[in-house]
Amino acid sequence: MNEFDLIARLTPNLATNAAVVTGAGDDCAVLDLGQPDQLTLFKTDAVVEGIHFTRETPPEKIGRKALARCLSDIAAMAGTPVAAVVTLALPTGFEPDRVTKIYDGLNALARETGVAIVGGETTTNPERLLLSIALLGTVPRGRAALRSGAKAGDAIFVTGDLGGSIAGKHLDFIPRLAEARWLAEHFTVHAMMDLSDGLGGDIQHILRASQVGAVLLKTAIPVSRAAKNRTTEKPPFVAALTDGEDFELLFTVPAKSAVPLLDAWKRQFPDLKLTCIGKIVAGQGVILQDRTGARPLNLGGYVHFDGKTS
Amino acid sequence: MNEFDLIARLTPNLATNAAVVTGAGDDCAVLDLGQPDQLTLFKTDAVVEGIHFTRETPPEKIGRKALARCLSDIAAMAGTPVAAVVTLALPTGFEPDRVTKIYDGLNALARETGVAIVGGETTTNPERLLLSIALLGTVPRGRAALRSGAKAGDAIFVTGDLGGSIAGKHLDFIPRLAEARWLAEHFTVHAMMDLSDGLGGDIQHILRASQVGAVLLKTAIPVSRAAKNRTTEKPPFVAALTDGEDFELLFTVPAKSAVPLLDAWKRQFPDLKLTCIGKIVAGQGVILQDRTGARPLNLGGYVHFDGKTS
Repeated sequence: MNEFDLIARLTPNLATNAAVVTGAGDDCAVLDLGQPDQLTLFKTDAVVEGIHFTRETPPEKIGRKALARCLSDIAAMAGTPVAAVVTLALPTGFEPDRVTKIYDGLNALARETGVAIVGGETTTNPERLLLSIALLGTVPRGRAALRSGAKAGDAIFVTGDLGGSIAGKHLDFIPRLAEARWLAEHFTVHAMMDLSDGLGGDIQHILRASQVGAVLLKTAIPVSRAAKNRTTEKPPFVAALTDGEDFELLFTVPAKSAVPLLDAWKRQFPDLKLTCIGKIVAGQGVILQDRTGARPLNLGGYVHFDGKTS
Repeated sequence: MNEFDLIARLTPNLATNAAVVTGAGDDCAVLDLGQPDQLTLFKTDAVVEGIHFTRETPPEKIGRKALARCLSDIAAMAGTPVAAVVTLALPTGFEPDRVTKIYDGLNALARETGVAIVGGETTTNPERLLLSIALLGTVPRGRAALRSGAKAGDAIFVTGDLGGSIAGKHLDFIPRLAEARWLAEHFTVHAMMDLSDGLGGDIQHILRASQVGAVLLKTAIPVSRAAKNRTTEKPPFVAALTDGEDFELLFTVPAKSAVPLLDAWKRQFPDLKLTCIGKIVAGQGVILQDRTGARPLNLGGYVHFDGKTS
């Protein structure tokens, strides 16, 4: 049983209540805690030694990455992060200095992004270090960008370049908080998410939640230099579609907004590429279009285990 | 370096912001997210296979315990729990049915207590199962029961019986949510916390945060039947002071409230014992008083690693 089957089994039966606006299944949960103008965003994410980092990873980058992953999910809702709590599961014989440096990295990114670290739990996980972070954020009422609002005709955009994150970006990526908030303030964002498992798989979450399909233009997909330089057998284009941990924004806007958006974006964020990679269509699944024609995207069943129910 | 030394090293440098009313160091963080009448409570806690439960523990009870521990911290603030997110780190070769049953236990307690499970993260932890839960709650403004408000002269109370939780209660305990809310509504609670590491050590958190001392009456400490029936070398009274996972409430109220409280409590909660175990005094540390006199409490350095920074 893979993660998606497991999540599909667990999700339908989750306890709920009147505070829930959007429960499990989007980048963050959306809650109504009674603020007059805002809703609350809630997210958890974990990194594990040997999976998301190694014993050799600089500890500051472990702390940074753990928080950045959650921040990317708040960004994907067009939200503002507020406060985090940290579960730190420490292996037998942990080095206190390593832990201090993990917290240094965590605190540094928290300060950069205005987040308070308001509590934590230390426990034992004898074989390896595990760091789980839960993050609260806020979003103005009516402005949370869900996965479920894509409409046929929408233009599909992605920030940055895709693939090859493992070469380094996965430890240094910048959560697209400012960009996402600006987007939601200035344009009608129909659907948005952050890319954590690769465009090819992740876009399916938007398509299923929105009950639509997509046509992607092969030559438009922004393949990163890291993906091109990789020495694995995976072709760069496949890496751009299937490598995890891009942490870029994937979103859709009405087609008529596409050109104004690209123009405004260049002025607002001259250092971050924004690419229109295709369009939303009626139907389901992803069609890949290139010079030779159009065919269903087939990634050969690439699925990896680490993922999320929200 | 033990947990407390580590936490003492990490806590002073945590990033903060204007939303933080009470940061790390109490049972929950208290945040002001702009609700007119309420503040937000935020807490994380984790259970780990081999430490908080075993491979033989019925899986429903693992899920129940993981949530109940967080609920107990919301209770300790006199709050109402609202929504939880779950990080589930699964060992290699996990059984999907075991995971489903963990969630069954979690959902059942969530429904009993009005909590929504609004998202989660599944990841891999090859050697053992780990379950980390973050819980949000609310508390009316002005009513959060902190650890820092105890005053000389206060009467000290504890709910239930103490010690021997490992015999079974640690999997079945009932978070004292209703009791704590009732207390805060009807009496002035100066300080409150939940007992997770044993009365003898836990009370020190209230004393240090409030800069006061305590006199405990040895014969008044409610020693559980499980502590009395234990076959270990630990005397029952020592077990009542040092065994972890009681998850009872420890709180202080002005001395003049002590008798009215006991009377009202008996009518309101006839099935749950409430015991006055001593009083808050000027100074620091704990004095234990019995028929032979009074002396500083000495627990022989009993400290265990699993704990919390909040």
